[in-house]
Amino acid sequence: MHHIDSLLEKVNKALKAEHFDMSPKELYEPISYTLDLGGKRIRPVLVLMACDLFGETPDIAINAAIGVEMFHNFTLVHDDIMDKAPIRRGKETVYKKWNTNIAILSGDTMFAKAYEYFLRLDDCHLKPVLKVFTQTGIDVCEGQQLDMNFESSEKVCIADYISMIRLKTASLTGASLKIGAIISNASEHDAKHLQDFGQNLGIAFQLKDDLLDVFGDEKKFGKKTGNDIATNKKTFLYLKAFELAKGKAHDRLLYYFVNATLDSEAKISAVKDIYTKLDLKAHTEKEMDGYYREALSHLDAIKVNKERKTELKALADKLMVREK
Amino acid sequence: MHHIDSLLEKVNKALKAEHFDMSPKELYEPISYTLDLGGKRIRPVLVLMACDLFGETPDIAINAAIGVEMFHNFTLVHDDIMDKAPIRRGKETVYKKWNTNIAILSGDTMFAKAYEYFLRLDDCHLKPVLKVFTQTGIDVCEGQQLDMNFESSEKVCIADYISMIRLKTASLTGASLKIGAIISNASEHDAKHLQDFGQNLGIAFQLKDDLLDVFGDEKKFGKKTGNDIATNKKTFLYLKAFELAKGKAHDRLLYYFVNATLDSEAKISAVKDIYTKLDLKAHTEKEMDGYYREALSHLDAIKVNKERKTELKALADKLMVREK
Repeated sequence: MHHIDSLLEKVNKALKAEHFDMSPKELYEPISYTLDLGGKRIRPVLVLMACDLFGETPDIAINAAIGVEMFHNFTLVHDDIMDKAPIRRGKETVYKKWNTNIAILSGDTMFAKAYEYFLRLDDCHLKPVLKVFTQTGIDVCEGQQLDMNFESSEKVCIADYISMIRLKTASLTGASLKIGAIISNASEHDAKHLQDFGQNLGIAFQLKDDLLDVFGDEKKFGKKTGNDIATNKKTFLYLKAFELAKGKAHDRLLYYFVNATLDSEAKISAVKDIYTKLDLKAHTEKEMDGYYREALSHLDAIKVNKERKTELKALADKLMVREK
Repeated sequence: MHHIDSLLEKVNKALKAEHFDMSPKELYEPISYTLDLGGKRIRPVLVLMACDLFGETPDIAINAAIGVEMFHNFTLVHDDIMDKAPIRRGKETVYKKWNTNIAILSGDTMFAKAYEYFLRLDDCHLKPVLKVFTQTGIDVCEGQQLDMNFESSEKVCIADYISMIRLKTASLTGASLKIGAIISNASEHDAKHLQDFGQNLGIAFQLKDDLLDVFGDEKKFGKKTGNDIATNKKTFLYLKAFELAKGKAHDRLLYYFVNATLDSEAKISAVKDIYTKLDLKAHTEKEMDGYYREALSHLDAIKVNKERKTELKALADKLMVREK
């Protein structure tokens, strides 16, 4: 069994060994830049953890892991254009540092490059792996479109939101594990349960993100909280708040979210106050816990020794209690 | 043997049978819209023609043909954003009709969908086909980046231009034929020569496009000529003109291309006049003819009966003499 840190090291080492100093540099520099920004590398680590679960050496899936990380970074580069996000991981986003055209095109190249890594797989695994990966590519696009639709829709409910993050975020965490399972020749039964574990964990993960953005400890979180409130993002907390708030509390919420002229700091502080009174931290944790438990039930159903599941269980726990 | 028109019909029928009425509609409507715009469908027809060349029924490659067309349309949707092009095939481009975000995301989805079609291939052909296709995906991105770089560069020479169109345009015509060859179990020798035929034809095809944009008969061309001149596009004719023009003719060319305040009609007319005096039609046709002959030499090298090559030869001839 490999500790998660040693798998992360494998991923980072493999990524470092890839050089994107090809021509034209306008296309490849943003790719190096994006990959160098770092991040948690959860998805490629999940690919390798799946191999470990089934008793295979993680090295057999390193190209798939890099492919998954390349794809994830492609989606970030394009999402940042669409969301007009100036900063990612403390640095300028690609479209800000270069321009929109370069961000579109280097993103497209990363998507193609992701397939290039998958094409290094053994013939016998290629089709099933690419079916999962390609479907996830489509899921992530659909999820991003729904997320954008929600910005201008007044009829979003919590079920819609969960469907959206299942596509935008959880599909890829599930797919990463399933890809590792396929490469390890796991049974279909086990591969499916592992995918479902990853999907449910992905949903819980996103809910935790939503929670930290409001109630995180800024010192540990590493950035300012309240960004989702400032930008009127329809997160789980926003939707739950409107579901719970009655009478005057409802009117006050509306006032803060509709009034575009408000000072951002004052708005964040007032909304946080309402969220606290509505006990939204507990509500979100309860929802998270539901997906976390559902995830664990799928992990339980996988027919390998319990000890082999220790690392995945530990990762799930770590993601739930993380403070950043 | 199938006549090219019957292969085109197969492509159009297969495309028509595909429905993109999925949700979210903001993502899928632009895909239907783009595919419905039509176009020459040269690339998918080339995939099927390759099967015919090797005595296989074209039906075995129909999914690959649709995949190639889907990919080509994805590149058009993204290119139109980058080139700020308002009109494509007589209708509004996706980013104009909807918006940039929708054009980025529906383009990304089309790229993933292209792979979905390829994943319907037999296992034995999947890896070699996807290697060719994925490399072409990267080539096209590199070509588009070079094309954008040329806009602000004063040091572009004809060799640079040919390298650029080899990547941006000719790589995919070559790949389309090679993919059909692989699916038909052609020898590596034949598949490579067919790809080289397609690449050289693709370069000649682009040179013909450049030529028509200046010297086309507007009635037959179906749109106004002179667009490349109006937008200072560094085509073969532009580069050859600066190579040939000496003294006053050179100064006049510079005047028309540098002076941003000129009336567009007057500029087009004056530049066309200089191009005519420099005999650029003949120069471009000579260059085109070189690539056309090179293409035919590769077609000759393919080890199948000469009669089987009739349709590809006829297509090449047709592309060379076309007026739109």
